Amino acid sequence: MDYPISAPHTIECIPARQGVAVHIKKGRTVRVINTHGKQVVDTWAFNANDVGEFLSMEHTRASILKLVPGVGDVLVSNRRSPILTIIDDTTPGVHDTLMAACDIHRYRQLGVEGYHENCADNLTRALSTLGISITETPSPLNLFMNVPVAEDGALSFKAPTSEPGQYVSLYAEMDLIAVFSACPQDVVPVNDMVPMEAHYAIF
Amino acid sequence: MDYPISAPHTIECIPARQGVAVHIKKGRTVRVINTHGKQVVDTWAFNANDVGEFLSMEHTRASILKLVPGVGDVLVSNRRSPILTIIDDTTPGVHDTLMAACDIHRYRQLGVEGYHENCADNLTRALSTLGISITETPSPLNLFMNVPVAEDGALSFKAPTSEPGQYVSLYAEMDLIAVFSACPQDVVPVNDMVPMEAHYAIF
Repeated sequence: MDYPISAPHTIECIPARQGVAVHIKKGRTVRVINTHGKQVVDTWAFNANDVGEFLSMEHTRASILKLVPGVGDVLVSNRRSPILTIIDDTTPGVHDTLMAACDIHRYRQLGVEGYHENCADNLTRALSTLGISITETPSPLNLFMNVPVAEDGALSFKAPTSEPGQYVSLYAEMDLIAVFSACPQDVVPVNDMVPMEAHYAIF
Repeated sequence: MDYPISAPHTIECIPARQGVAVHIKKGRTVRVINTHGKQVVDTWAFNANDVGEFLSMEHTRASILKLVPGVGDVLVSNRRSPILTIIDDTTPGVHDTLMAACDIHRYRQLGVEGYHENCADNLTRALSTLGISITETPSPLNLFMNVPVAEDGALSFKAPTSEPGQYVSLYAEMDLIAVFSACPQDVVPVNDMVPMEAHYAIF
């Protein structure tokens, strides 16, 4: 299959520590750009016609038989339907499918007092700008996130391996609503300790 | 912490290809027994007072920093609260946290025509016997399931490594409803091709 990248397009900002929701039509491609290189972008996708169907990490792993998807892999929904295909990746290919989105409970356990921005709230707030509410936070595709898996199954949180301007391109297999959250984690080094903005462009 | 195992108790059946739901009080222990040795038991746990809180694989991995939990590990909910602790495991310790429950879509893709029993339906049916309905299928703790992870992140489905009568004991950290499904998968070898019954006992 051929995935044409057609001009024109504009580059939009995912502000530091915040989330954005955007409609993407079937057959379009969204490029998620790690502008500063070390920023994790928690990514979700929902069927635009039924948000009860969404990108699922546990169904995708069972389908592609890999911990981490790469170029050519078709990511599937919780109904095992194709929802996004990775058609390009200029990073070293280090992403995460294992970890929940950060949430207020996570920061509380890390010793943060008061409110802390978090990807779970960013998701619900971003969707609310489109008039959409959800009851659960699907496990996200954590683009650029570096969670090494040791031989004994031990996991750790490390800084991303990507460099400024590197990106991943995702082809929409259905009409969907995508949400991108520039992860605000600044207690453990998943964003190299400095949450930054990222960008996306739809082709 | 000490986890006393107190008599008396009775051993209950998880019928082959079916699911059961059971209330477990905080402080009790449920032993899940692989009666015939090669049967996967998809396991869920819900807060008995609010089924919107449930055992979460993606939050548990972030908490224990392991792909597969072992004895002493505290499994957490989608609100990052302790919900179950593994206090005993007489198997070789091979379980799975990566794979979605099997569902009708899975069997359709595997070429099965007509209905096939599946763990997702077993979950909703078992909960319905307690008058409970849910909208989503949480990613299960797949007890005894053997999903080797290769060095390059490749995943595969293999027969369980456990032997007849081996078991895992789970301590309830809150009042909960547990659901156990004796996985009906008979197309790929996760149950060594022959789905069987399993058993559980609450102490």
